[in-house]
Amino acid sequence: MQSYFRNFVSDMEKTLLPICLFLCIEVCLVSAVFLQKVNVWPMPNYLSNGDKTLYMGNDFELETAGSKFADASGILKDGFLRVMDIVKLDHVIDDSHSTLNESALLKGLKVVIQSPNNELQYGVDESYKLTVPGPGYAHIEAPTVYGALHGLQTFSQLCHFNFKTRVIEVNLVPWTIIDMPRFPYRGLLIDTARHYLPLPVIKNVIDSMTYAKLNVLHWHIVDTQSFPLEIPSYPKLWKGAYSASERYTFADAAEIVSYAERRGVNVLAEIDVPGHAASWGFGYPSLWPSANCTQPLDVSNEFTFKVIDGILSEFKKIFKFRFVHLGGDEVDTGCWESTPHVQRWLAEHKMNGSEAYEYFVLKAQKIALSHGYEIVNWEETFNNFGDKLSPKTVVQNWLEIGVAERAVAAGFRCIVSNQDKWYLNYVHSTWDQVYSNEPLTNITNPKLQALVIGGEVCSWGEFIDGSDIQQTIWPRAAAAAERLWTSYDKLAKDPRQVTERLAHFSSEPKSILKEKGSFGHVMTNWLRT
Amino acid sequence: MQSYFRNFVSDMEKTLLPICLFLCIEVCLVSAVFLQKVNVWPMPNYLSNGDKTLYMGNDFELETAGSKFADASGILKDGFLRVMDIVKLDHVIDDSHSTLNESALLKGLKVVIQSPNNELQYGVDESYKLTVPGPGYAHIEAPTVYGALHGLQTFSQLCHFNFKTRVIEVNLVPWTIIDMPRFPYRGLLIDTARHYLPLPVIKNVIDSMTYAKLNVLHWHIVDTQSFPLEIPSYPKLWKGAYSASERYTFADAAEIVSYAERRGVNVLAEIDVPGHAASWGFGYPSLWPSANCTQPLDVSNEFTFKVIDGILSEFKKIFKFRFVHLGGDEVDTGCWESTPHVQRWLAEHKMNGSEAYEYFVLKAQKIALSHGYEIVNWEETFNNFGDKLSPKTVVQNWLEIGVAERAVAAGFRCIVSNQDKWYLNYVHSTWDQVYSNEPLTNITNPKLQALVIGGEVCSWGEFIDGSDIQQTIWPRAAAAAERLWTSYDKLAKDPRQVTERLAHFSSEPKSILKEKGSFGHVMTNWLRT
Repeated sequence: MQSYFRNFVSDMEKTLLPICLFLCIEVCLVSAVFLQKVNVWPMPNYLSNGDKTLYMGNDFELETAGSKFADASGILKDGFLRVMDIVKLDHVIDDSHSTLNESALLKGLKVVIQSPNNELQYGVDESYKLTVPGPGYAHIEAPTVYGALHGLQTFSQLCHFNFKTRVIEVNLVPWTIIDMPRFPYRGLLIDTARHYLPLPVIKNVIDSMTYAKLNVLHWHIVDTQSFPLEIPSYPKLWKGAYSASERYTFADAAEIVSYAERRGVNVLAEIDVPGHAASWGFGYPSLWPSANCTQPLDVSNEFTFKVIDGILSEFKKIFKFRFVHLGGDEVDTGCWESTPHVQRWLAEHKMNGSEAYEYFVLKAQKIALSHGYEIVNWEETFNNFGDKLSPKTVVQNWLEIGVAERAVAAGFRCIVSNQDKWYLNYVHSTWDQVYSNEPLTNITNPKLQALVIGGEVCSWGEFIDGSDIQQTIWPRAAAAAERLWTSYDKLAKDPRQVTERLAHFSSEPKSILKEKGSFGHVMTNWLRT
Repeated sequence: MQSYFRNFVSDMEKTLLPICLFLCIEVCLVSAVFLQKVNVWPMPNYLSNGDKTLYMGNDFELETAGSKFADASGILKDGFLRVMDIVKLDHVIDDSHSTLNESALLKGLKVVIQSPNNELQYGVDESYKLTVPGPGYAHIEAPTVYGALHGLQTFSQLCHFNFKTRVIEVNLVPWTIIDMPRFPYRGLLIDTARHYLPLPVIKNVIDSMTYAKLNVLHWHIVDTQSFPLEIPSYPKLWKGAYSASERYTFADAAEIVSYAERRGVNVLAEIDVPGHAASWGFGYPSLWPSANCTQPLDVSNEFTFKVIDGILSEFKKIFKFRFVHLGGDEVDTGCWESTPHVQRWLAEHKMNGSEAYEYFVLKAQKIALSHGYEIVNWEETFNNFGDKLSPKTVVQNWLEIGVAERAVAAGFRCIVSNQDKWYLNYVHSTWDQVYSNEPLTNITNPKLQALVIGGEVCSWGEFIDGSDIQQTIWPRAAAAAERLWTSYDKLAKDPRQVTERLAHFSSEPKSILKEKGSFGHVMTNWLRT
């Protein structure tokens, strides 16, 4: 690693020497080492740049003239303001001492969006073209507002505070960036069942996802440990919350979805049935096989499915994503087989535990389909029931090797989240392992490749709460985000090639992304003048 | 601990039974356990309350009629808006489903401030009176705007989201709170030399200090490891920064001071001389005794004192606090005694290393005094030089036992920060140890007690950066904050008596304060319905 940096510094010194002599500024050498690199994360799919520098005026503005898109909802304007806040966050902008050249002024950003439809949905066109041709205006063109939001994020990464002039600069002009995601599903799982996460923490996570162009928040809402969400038609369910205040009202959930959607992030809601659901019974004990054996949910009780139907009926009002997640993992049917009234029901229906598990999963899928949802299930449902699952199932891989291969071979869509690499709560997984995890491993047929709709990094909540979730997610989630966004041929074959760019991304004004100690000091030693 | 909670729950059930029967709400019991307690932190000095509940209207307003204070600077208005944001942060406020009683409406807050002078300075009157007499208006009266800001914080702690009505309530009305600090100096040290802290992180720390009524941010700006701050008259000094971007412009520093002052927080700037200063020489190598022996700063070089004078001259433009901190700790004079030209100077001036250390400290003090500053020095200066120090010195205790006693006996003012209890970077110090640390230990004479101006918790930065500083500071800094604010007779003799109240403070909407795991689960288990 050290020799990589040393070579890099040596190369840069050669390149920069003429410029430095010309400008003759104390801070030039070290600044320029940063600024003369392409520091965009995730790496765009096409990129060209020059060597000129522009600076951003104090009244840098957004223009949407010429767009069919009217931005009546303010999605673009809000996105622009957020990005400008981030760009200006770290230092006081003050050009009063500068002698800035009017001919190098960047006045604003012109955005043209083709579609006035701003419905966010799975598969929405997220592409964009960003150009900074020279003085005057930068340009973003995009089919949808969500592509334009990605373009804004990329633009923000071209902007740097100049310590000499005290203004924001864009270096390496002219820029042309043409960009689109490799996978339509780029997810992050949060878990509010093992620890309650306050609303502002979830919003903060959503904001940080947008910096890395992740686009699905998989909200593992409830589990064995707690049921924090209000379900209006079953008002006792949130008696399973940890406490009176560790709860989300239905309006809170709607607010999270709305907040995410305005930022181009879909919310995938999960109820994990029948195995991870003991908390449901605090409000409705008949959902438990018995008070002493509380999960899986009682398969013999029609009320169980009535409640699932009720929950999905409420979900449909606020969770507008095409998919709902029904869990289905880690089911131990021991409680069914040892509880007398469930035993009797199994006997009457001529089922053993495994068959009842299948009965439950398929029945829950039908309920979801009846509400217009397609389904995501954890891989155990596929491993056990294969093509008995609805063809509208997406298999989420986490446990075994080769599941994605087998699932797409069987015609199912798949999301890759293999725990050995993409479980962020396993804090021993290093960023380069995360980066190297390839969703299409051993899948070569393009038709089958297309069934892998994407991947997801998971931040399970057993040992994570609002105080450290961001530090657990970042910067490693960014490594996965590049794997999921950038075309395969543009990805680094050796992660060490992107260390410096990831470090730059992690130490952006988005200070929450800054990994404790390590990155900062790697950068620090060789930058000391 | 368990039995404490069990008794508490049992007591509360008795108290609450009539109310619960009346309201007949599912969530009543658990909510009420929270709401019927006085959950203000730090504990006010006089407090009385009733048993009525009011709710806050959507257009809850600030009124300053009747006040001599015009709030032209907007300090109060901004404080009010911040506090309202915090109160409303965690849940969607939505009273559309409620049948709220107009006669229980709290319309706003009337604030009367006696002095139109809003200069923040050491010893400013921070007292306030807060009353919530009944429906209509709450009232804050204060001699200064800074007392009123404390009153706003206290008021925010009386407010709770009601999961039934979906509005913010104030319980236990009528309230009368009369409050003032025990000590005028209630500090927190941050260290931007061992890790650079981005501007937004420092602002976030300042905001969190106000929640606990801490009022001095001790900014340990530079040290051996780095010199991140721009000094306009010595523009090479920040060559000692870690990197080109890990720097504060002079305008950034002014922004930090202004941000803090508008929140009632003074900023104590520190340059730690002569021992913790090797980074100074990256810009001006003649400040080093030699390139191989880089600290203490070269005592033999008049330029050393010229630079200190220059720095303090710049400081005076932005750091308006009465005090400047000159460090003076952990000085090893070996470099002076082993470097030929310094050896010669020592011989010429008939000094040994210790005498030169004294010469340096006293000369630096005179420079600070010449700029109108009083001085804070770490305790080694007192331990070594005693009453040779300027009488305008405040001795900051950190290392040895009994220093505060000896310093005040010698007529010096003192700040207590003993490392065994109040160094927050020692993460093994528990909150109850922090709480129990009494600054006036063994000081009984009231005149000498008055010389202890306060205390400070220290978050040294060797292993802390922007990603975890808040988690290191909180909730333990809150324990010290109550020790420094609340009168001695109101402090808990056994910290376990305040566990629940501190847990409540730590899990307020100010989610950053929430300690990882531990508190949440203590609360969780006994609140499960």
